Amino acid sequence: MKTVRLGIAGLGTVAQGVLQIIRDNQSLIAGRTGVTLEVKRVASRTPKPEIDLVGGEFVTDLSQLLADDVDVVVELIGGEDQARSLIEAALAAGKGVVTANKAVIANHGYELLAGKGAVPLKYEASVAGAIPIIQAIERGLVANRLSHLVGIINGTCNYILTAMQEEGESFADALNTAQALGYAEADPTFDVEGIDAGHKLAILTGLAFDVAVDFSALHVEGISAITVADIEYAKQLGYRIKHVGIAKQHAQDGAIEARVHPALVPEDALFANVNGVTNAVLINADAAGQTLFSGPGAGGAATASAVVADILALSRFEPDADVLPPEQVAFMPIDQVRCANYLRIPVRDEPGVFARIASALSEHNISIEAAIQKEPRQRAETVAIVILTGDCSEAEIEHAVSQVQALPQNVDRIARIRVENLD
Amino acid sequence: MKTVRLGIAGLGTVAQGVLQIIRDNQSLIAGRTGVTLEVKRVASRTPKPEIDLVGGEFVTDLSQLLADDVDVVVELIGGEDQARSLIEAALAAGKGVVTANKAVIANHGYELLAGKGAVPLKYEASVAGAIPIIQAIERGLVANRLSHLVGIINGTCNYILTAMQEEGESFADALNTAQALGYAEADPTFDVEGIDAGHKLAILTGLAFDVAVDFSALHVEGISAITVADIEYAKQLGYRIKHVGIAKQHAQDGAIEARVHPALVPEDALFANVNGVTNAVLINADAAGQTLFSGPGAGGAATASAVVADILALSRFEPDADVLPPEQVAFMPIDQVRCANYLRIPVRDEPGVFARIASALSEHNISIEAAIQKEPRQRAETVAIVILTGDCSEAEIEHAVSQVQALPQNVDRIARIRVENLD
Repeated sequence: MKTVRLGIAGLGTVAQGVLQIIRDNQSLIAGRTGVTLEVKRVASRTPKPEIDLVGGEFVTDLSQLLADDVDVVVELIGGEDQARSLIEAALAAGKGVVTANKAVIANHGYELLAGKGAVPLKYEASVAGAIPIIQAIERGLVANRLSHLVGIINGTCNYILTAMQEEGESFADALNTAQALGYAEADPTFDVEGIDAGHKLAILTGLAFDVAVDFSALHVEGISAITVADIEYAKQLGYRIKHVGIAKQHAQDGAIEARVHPALVPEDALFANVNGVTNAVLINADAAGQTLFSGPGAGGAATASAVVADILALSRFEPDADVLPPEQVAFMPIDQVRCANYLRIPVRDEPGVFARIASALSEHNISIEAAIQKEPRQRAETVAIVILTGDCSEAEIEHAVSQVQALPQNVDRIARIRVENLD
Repeated sequence: MKTVRLGIAGLGTVAQGVLQIIRDNQSLIAGRTGVTLEVKRVASRTPKPEIDLVGGEFVTDLSQLLADDVDVVVELIGGEDQARSLIEAALAAGKGVVTANKAVIANHGYELLAGKGAVPLKYEASVAGAIPIIQAIERGLVANRLSHLVGIINGTCNYILTAMQEEGESFADALNTAQALGYAEADPTFDVEGIDAGHKLAILTGLAFDVAVDFSALHVEGISAITVADIEYAKQLGYRIKHVGIAKQHAQDGAIEARVHPALVPEDALFANVNGVTNAVLINADAAGQTLFSGPGAGGAATASAVVADILALSRFEPDADVLPPEQVAFMPIDQVRCANYLRIPVRDEPGVFARIASALSEHNISIEAAIQKEPRQRAETVAIVILTGDCSEAEIEHAVSQVQALPQNVDRIARIRVENLD
């Protein structure tokens, strides 16, 4: 029986989940893996005497986790600088490291890992909580060339969009509910503006395409501009609106695009039916075809499940030999990305307005695939003209939208949401 | 750079998929893993000169795969006895073995593996094709106690039920279409009667609950008795009909039930929206919560993706030390299993018939949760009374159904389909 001695940094919900798993499932895990997990030390600023440390000693100094009697440091303090320093110090001291810290891996994974598999640093818990998506890409789909992946990787956004869709709530009301239920922070910016999803997408993109990802090269948008009207129109067109991370590698030239934004997805796709705080990642691979992985993307116990799996994986870690370091590639600038678009154009209902919009789109080589224009209840009322375009570049649609926005009939900001057909 | 030399048994679609992956993705795989795959020999009865063996030598004698210059034997011949002998011989010769053979693993996995992880035998491809479900249970969810799993693990059944649902086709017509499309064999018994799903469920059950499974202890039913009327009534009740494998471990006494049959599942569940030939496995675990894994369950390339992943996993194989051998447990007999039921009872529409049915159910302590009885278009016409029961034991529902079947108003066989609420 092998014993793995743990130094746990942090005593928040994920750390508590790890301690609970060790307490409850220790013998089950030992029977399955031949490994006993021993909590040596738990470091946090403030003691929480009500929490069972499963035999571990409480310390306030992170450096005590680097002592010789610790085999694996479990970094669950969050934040970026301190966490990164701890990870670096632990690796330098020859320890294995498990982290749930998406910001550190998204921003510094390349330097920390120095090539996948060469360093005993595992981060399954940093993306999509309980879903073993990193091992799925690294091991399960290792024989495949991936073409693209699409993820619902922020539970807060998915909860809010689901509530807007199912209850007809406004963004603000749905956000309030999410906050009341603990699904959104008091300051929700990080989630609803897409930064959290961006970190996770950066990690997935690096793994999927064997590249080093510069997080600042990702295009990131949140969901705060989505209205119930957009969700309703999308439904009429056979779509749902999801906040997604998309990473694609183009077959012709190997160019990679990575972007986080709301998107219309076909309502009959399995992916479109991933609701509430659930996360999902859809992967398109040359041999395996299309696979989907879904489950709880957050929560102490769910994230701890991935942390403990990583600790056990490290217990059998051997550095990969002769693997190629990830390539450093420039991402495709967003204005070159091509996709279909949903447009909601608020106009005064005057003769010829649809024709002028169609003509502006046509000038930029943008086709109209579908359109909705409801009869106004009385003449000269404001109406919304809703259009689904064919594929075009971001540059083309942006120019066309500016031109339409400048029409004298236009009465409000045009809403544009990209369309992702998941094929 | 490590080289793994392969002896491939079989030259069917999966073997062709393996050869194609090696040809197309060799350098990608080597860059990721540091492993070069070398096809030494391919054994089959009949040569297929049109297939590129990627440098491998064609042989007709399986024993030539056991030569010293082969590291891993890839068993893709199907069938049971010959495949099992080859696997045993290869393991005895000190080689790693990868197999896609669900029948062999379901029936002999316990003897062959002698404890999970102790023997270099991998079988990811035996369940759910491209979906890395075995590594998800063995590694990703290793820290969890699983309570139950539900799988759509036969693509033929799911294709037929989806066609019946979406096109209103009869079972016979949908089966014909499936055969024309290559989704069903000329003799479809193995798939539509649930045996194939049973093999896969046996494998998943063993992994999920760390037990040795006796395949003959599984309760197995197919879909040939399902009618379009059942699918329509289920829809009215908010359900879809899927062919599922269910494995549960009861918390109180550790008793395990494992059964394959059609079931009503709630239509708003993600699982219910897994359609066509796609497979999916839903897992409920104590820490991770509910995760779902879906993707292509069959096909040469998709299955080959899992085979090659296994070959690469074997390249870093080390036997687990001190793991407990799977426990041998008696499964819960089917008549003790409890679940809710859908009943479609064809009767002559006479006064008091519903009351007599309700009374028969009540006598066996079975509650009625929902019922549909449409007005007949003319008096004395035959009607279907459709009932959703509360949870009861199989013994109770079987007795109650027999009693109702014997009513003088009954005009045809009663359809009973179990209900699985996926919670």
